[in-house]
Amino acid sequence: MSTGTKMRPFGKTIPITEALSLAEQASVPLARTEQVDLDNALGRVLARGIVADQDVPPFDRAAMDGYAVVAESTSGATRDEPRRLACVETVHTGGVPSQAIGTGQCTQIATGAPVPDGADAVVMVEETERAGDDVSVFSPVSPRQHIGRRGADIASGTELLGIGDHLTPSRVGSIAALGIAEVEVYAKPRVAILSTGNEIIAPGQLLGPGQIYDINRYSLGAVIREHGGIPLPLPTAPDNVDELGATVDACLAEDADILVFSGGSSVGERDLTIDVLRLKGEVVFHGIAVKPGKPTVLGRIGDTPVLGMPGYPTSCLSNAYLLLMPMLRRIARLPAHRFRSVTVPTGQRFKSVAGRHQFYSVRVVDGEAVGAFKASGDITSMSLADGYIEIPTGTDLVEQGEVVEVKLF
Amino acid sequence: MSTGTKMRPFGKTIPITEALSLAEQASVPLARTEQVDLDNALGRVLARGIVADQDVPPFDRAAMDGYAVVAESTSGATRDEPRRLACVETVHTGGVPSQAIGTGQCTQIATGAPVPDGADAVVMVEETERAGDDVSVFSPVSPRQHIGRRGADIASGTELLGIGDHLTPSRVGSIAALGIAEVEVYAKPRVAILSTGNEIIAPGQLLGPGQIYDINRYSLGAVIREHGGIPLPLPTAPDNVDELGATVDACLAEDADILVFSGGSSVGERDLTIDVLRLKGEVVFHGIAVKPGKPTVLGRIGDTPVLGMPGYPTSCLSNAYLLLMPMLRRIARLPAHRFRSVTVPTGQRFKSVAGRHQFYSVRVVDGEAVGAFKASGDITSMSLADGYIEIPTGTDLVEQGEVVEVKLF
Repeated sequence: MSTGTKMRPFGKTIPITEALSLAEQASVPLARTEQVDLDNALGRVLARGIVADQDVPPFDRAAMDGYAVVAESTSGATRDEPRRLACVETVHTGGVPSQAIGTGQCTQIATGAPVPDGADAVVMVEETERAGDDVSVFSPVSPRQHIGRRGADIASGTELLGIGDHLTPSRVGSIAALGIAEVEVYAKPRVAILSTGNEIIAPGQLLGPGQIYDINRYSLGAVIREHGGIPLPLPTAPDNVDELGATVDACLAEDADILVFSGGSSVGERDLTIDVLRLKGEVVFHGIAVKPGKPTVLGRIGDTPVLGMPGYPTSCLSNAYLLLMPMLRRIARLPAHRFRSVTVPTGQRFKSVAGRHQFYSVRVVDGEAVGAFKASGDITSMSLADGYIEIPTGTDLVEQGEVVEVKLF
Repeated sequence: MSTGTKMRPFGKTIPITEALSLAEQASVPLARTEQVDLDNALGRVLARGIVADQDVPPFDRAAMDGYAVVAESTSGATRDEPRRLACVETVHTGGVPSQAIGTGQCTQIATGAPVPDGADAVVMVEETERAGDDVSVFSPVSPRQHIGRRGADIASGTELLGIGDHLTPSRVGSIAALGIAEVEVYAKPRVAILSTGNEIIAPGQLLGPGQIYDINRYSLGAVIREHGGIPLPLPTAPDNVDELGATVDACLAEDADILVFSGGSSVGERDLTIDVLRLKGEVVFHGIAVKPGKPTVLGRIGDTPVLGMPGYPTSCLSNAYLLLMPMLRRIARLPAHRFRSVTVPTGQRFKSVAGRHQFYSVRVVDGEAVGAFKASGDITSMSLADGYIEIPTGTDLVEQGEVVEVKLF
């Protein structure tokens, strides 16, 4: 996002599919792990499988409130000809039976309580009537009926969850079922964000002449947070190879797992991402056939991917969705992202640029997708939109009324 | 999830639609607000509109690297007959022009830099050639071309975002564009979670006879976190009206915005949620025509909704998705949730219970939805599933091959 006396021409751009494939190769899933307690495990990725060391439930338990019985004692029971059983005790949930039962006996039992030895079924309370210790049973039960068998939920020895499993609410619950209070998960990727450009200052300060506020640090930071990373915002870096190089060294020393520059990736004299990459590592590609977001660079310093985003807020953010997000999720070992989306007809014709994959921000108005894009430099191209559509390289026109998938922000 | 010597029959259940409507009425959007800095604003809901107090960009700026010109100086330019202009200075991004230009003059300018007075267009560097201070222009530009006008992104005085707007990455970025470093947002609802039941103990402890580990505290806590709430887990409450009542008082004193009990909402003698509600507030409904999850109670103590969930982990979690989640999002002022979903044919026939709305956990295997439900007491009914389908009250059968929407966990 700068110029000078010598201007460098843009090299050949590469298709988005090729850029994504190179980005994938440059993104190595993290091996670093950490322990988290179960209250903070949601959304994390298991780094160690969970093998059950016990049965869940740990005992045969009543699945209904009622009476634990020997099933054959209830054979042939009807409302007119009930079977009469003698109730020997009551077991509340959390309690344990003190005695076994035999034919003709029963134990009043609460849902979740252990069934007594001898019992092989539970009669629902609705199918009984009680007078003193005399219980009339109105319908027969078969063996195992209304009993939750020991180990039926999780059997001791089975692998409940494996390495790489993503922790949803029910999976967190299933770990709790085994009494496990802490899990080992992969660390979250640390993503250094460097907004480069002499004109960029942080919100909260007063603007000087020719200056604008830093947008990309915040929009990139938010995308990074949404997709399992930890943003490490750095002070805005001036357009100067030495200072930028020193900042990069500091990021690497602090174990950043990805470096994301914004600005400095266009073709002017002062486009320093490229210079710093050549000095310290290698350039993987420079320029993608996407619109907006063409002047994007990917490089590597050692094993650390370095992504140079366009300085323009909309180009930067659209490439954060297209390119940074899948890289980050791969490094974080998260499953591929599935956008919330709506499928609607377009309310207008959308023209695309031949040979470039287009990211088009849209609003959904009266059930139709209409364009929200203003200019690459305008963050309101995105912030006033509901989501975006993609028009692939081979398509240069989407007619009004064609059905499109809007990926929602 | 308990029983005793006196058992209470279940009252009439209400349809899920009615339960949802009553739950909505009982859920009052929070008025409490707080200040957060912009780095932590993602996903929050604005409690105060953002009105621009300045133009973004704050000056007319170059949208391309090139030369700022008076458009008419380029009229008729071609590669064979270029227009020759005298370059008066160079303006880098972050710099400011020191002089105005007139016809026949130009200023070399970087993308994002302020255009000099007198200039009304920018010629792309690719359309020029330079020799000393002599610049040849190969194609004409029209007034305003390649200029980002002052205020074109956000004009001073306009409302950028309104009360209730949900902060996405681009909206966070647009707030940064105005130099705002802190925003006022609605507080997150505080949700007290009480796992009731004498048999329930916390993970990390040793199981005694008849005991099981608390699952619901963790699965509920995760759903609450996913949908904008702050879970406040309490020690498991014993099945005793006095102690439970005291715990409820403590929650209300600590400004819980919702109380969620799990367990204690079935029909046995020791089902205390109902008793505590009758003592301290009112019961709104008891029993929903859903499967699983019928024994669910909603009440109110003052303005605070109290949700009594079934103790069974799958019933509890399915009702967390169906009922607690929309309540929580309404209280948090979040937009209605849109699940990530896949639309696939079923790989088997699904039977539902007449007159009950059914929540069916499923796996997606080879592009087909197959049942994953084991029993309401088994958390693996959910943790080994990919998502769920809903079979509405009026439908008792979904044939193999019918297309269903699987809402993904």
